[in-house]
Amino acid sequence: MFVKRVLGIDPGVATTGFGVVEQESSSIVAVASGAILTPAKEPLPSRLAMLAVGLRKVITEHEPESIAVERILFQNNVRTAMAVGQASGVVLLCAAEAGLEVGFYSPNEIKQAVTGSGLARKDQVSQMVQRLFGLDEIPRPDDVADALAIAFTHLTSARLRARISRASGDMPVARLGGASPFARVG
Amino acid sequence: MFVKRVLGIDPGVATTGFGVVEQESSSIVAVASGAILTPAKEPLPSRLAMLAVGLRKVITEHEPESIAVERILFQNNVRTAMAVGQASGVVLLCAAEAGLEVGFYSPNEIKQAVTGSGLARKDQVSQMVQRLFGLDEIPRPDDVADALAIAFTHLTSARLRARISRASGDMPVARLGGASPFARVG
Repeated sequence: MFVKRVLGIDPGVATTGFGVVEQESSSIVAVASGAILTPAKEPLPSRLAMLAVGLRKVITEHEPESIAVERILFQNNVRTAMAVGQASGVVLLCAAEAGLEVGFYSPNEIKQAVTGSGLARKDQVSQMVQRLFGLDEIPRPDDVADALAIAFTHLTSARLRARISRASGDMPVARLGGASPFARVG
Repeated sequence: MFVKRVLGIDPGVATTGFGVVEQESSSIVAVASGAILTPAKEPLPSRLAMLAVGLRKVITEHEPESIAVERILFQNNVRTAMAVGQASGVVLLCAAEAGLEVGFYSPNEIKQAVTGSGLARKDQVSQMVQRLFGLDEIPRPDDVADALAIAFTHLTSARLRARISRASGDMPVARLGGASPFARVG
């Protein structure tokens, strides 16, 4: 499928970054971006409910065709993994309930797509996000830049898959290798 | 608050155990229990949506006054922690959206409440769940026994807090030590 409008999300209980990215003729533009914040004094279930309210609002306002999130393989500690998992669960539920497909990308795939190197540093990704979208400043907090990077990754990889798919006739997208399309063609 | 009907939940993407437990005069009975299963072939967001549908049905049918879940501190690996976190995020969101308070209990608190020992083995907890609720068999899968154990823990610790609160006049519950009521009085 040739996706044209993607919502990238960097989930977290305290801060969830989001970025809506669109293909406009030959360029990719950032339509909207920001962060959904929840107050630390609230109980965890309430914070997750606030996150869901914010997400559903973004989805309704910007009507993305699909959602892209990071595939998290490693975390510094289990407590962090649990918290990211809880926020991520809410994001994926909201996506499913809105009937949106979800693309998952590893940190390396995102770095590769945005900077051309899977080994890029975090600040290099942020700087490239600023340049790619022609923004006045590097988006802050980092979660917003990350969300834009994830959306960019999904949009360009979907475009790439579509191009390869056209070039090779009816070859199904799934046969190109699900996890890392860039690894197969780069 | 003197809780009378509790929904205990043991969250997981593949299998979420639940148990509805009620105080009836001097005894505690299992009103309902079971597991919400999601097929492995479905994409993760759809599985989380199925979990939410199942949970909301259980909440609507059995109208618990509160929900109790395990506070997970450790997991064998980060991938497991992420998956449990995602299911747990959906559970907590559904609880908040139903206006239900959520009680969190550590594995040790649950073992302590059910068996009298924080060091009990998993099969000892399952056996005690069977005895406490007068069940013909040990509930299977384990997630169901665990959910009943968590609900039992919440009900008895809430009752305990209420009793102590009455005995000591207006002393607020919060001052009894939030994380582990049993550790303070046992």
